[in-house]
Amino acid sequence: MSDLQPLDPLIQALRRLPGVGVKSAQRMAFHLMQRDQDGARVLSRALQEAVDSVQHCSRCNTFTHDAVCPICRDAGRDAARLCVVETPADLAAMERTGAYSGYYFVLMGRISPMDGVGAKDIGLPRLLERVADGVVQEVILATSFTTEGEATAHAVTELMQGRQVQVTRLARGVPVGSELEYVDLGTIAHALVERR
Amino acid sequence: MSDLQPLDPLIQALRRLPGVGVKSAQRMAFHLMQRDQDGARVLSRALQEAVDSVQHCSRCNTFTHDAVCPICRDAGRDAARLCVVETPADLAAMERTGAYSGYYFVLMGRISPMDGVGAKDIGLPRLLERVADGVVQEVILATSFTTEGEATAHAVTELMQGRQVQVTRLARGVPVGSELEYVDLGTIAHALVERR
Repeated sequence: MSDLQPLDPLIQALRRLPGVGVKSAQRMAFHLMQRDQDGARVLSRALQEAVDSVQHCSRCNTFTHDAVCPICRDAGRDAARLCVVETPADLAAMERTGAYSGYYFVLMGRISPMDGVGAKDIGLPRLLERVADGVVQEVILATSFTTEGEATAHAVTELMQGRQVQVTRLARGVPVGSELEYVDLGTIAHALVERR
Repeated sequence: MSDLQPLDPLIQALRRLPGVGVKSAQRMAFHLMQRDQDGARVLSRALQEAVDSVQHCSRCNTFTHDAVCPICRDAGRDAARLCVVETPADLAAMERTGAYSGYYFVLMGRISPMDGVGAKDIGLPRLLERVADGVVQEVILATSFTTEGEATAHAVTELMQGRQVQVTRLARGVPVGSELEYVDLGTIAHALVERR
């Protein structure tokens, strides 16, 4: 039977990618084998190399090739401030603003009871260690403004209680460049309450 | 810079999959590295093995581990009939019907001028060779009933002109189990013209 469907192992492996069902996996396998075998080789190598060489930064928990990532190695940043984000992509977005010069901590996830991700499954114990260095004075919560991101922010806030650290949250409000007419009501209500 | 984005090579490789943009690729890379490193290893191996060991059947052009696929090796089938399909998935669908006992030829694509796929880019020359064996009496066109599938069927029909081979096409009509009210008008019109 297996030789009747020689691409089956590849199709099954592709289905482990998030958002890829059996039809997409079949299309991908066919495309790679028929039109882009070079792409299949490149992807195979990239997967193996990522698994072999990418690790977590021992200070901020982001993905890195070294034991400590370039940002954490940069001694010129403001060590009193620690920005807590969900993912390396969020860290990259913060960096692109050019408005932040402190260090980061990457949770590598967010609390999501629906997906079985609790407070223990994200990097909270390591965050606690990181904050206990006596230098961090402010923890800036930059988790998403979604139910799950807010739950994560709440868990971090609770974790910091009783410690000599100020906990702040990114401001909620109307996005730059938007017309009020098209902004959702919850955002406007928040912006009104938090007006300054 | 590269160590700031250690997953970039993986993200770029994932973007070569059809239908995967940069956001999906980032999500896939993050998922594999953070939640399913075993999946990354499995996928890496499956890609490499597929590229290394899967080839085209020398008779019907489908994917196979051997020089000749199991269906073409099966001497008990009706050698007078050859069913032309676009992909191995279409071949599998025909087999699942249990209603066909002839052999197959898999074009591995269809004519699609929009994607730059012309008559020369699909397996037409090899089909011509296959049909020239003097045993095939009927070529059954089972390409898709889309513009591209019809164009492909037309190209095969032209190719067969002047040869001692009858060319037939799967019947167009109302799908089994459907209520007329919900069938598109083009299908009903075809079913009416081709009534029997």
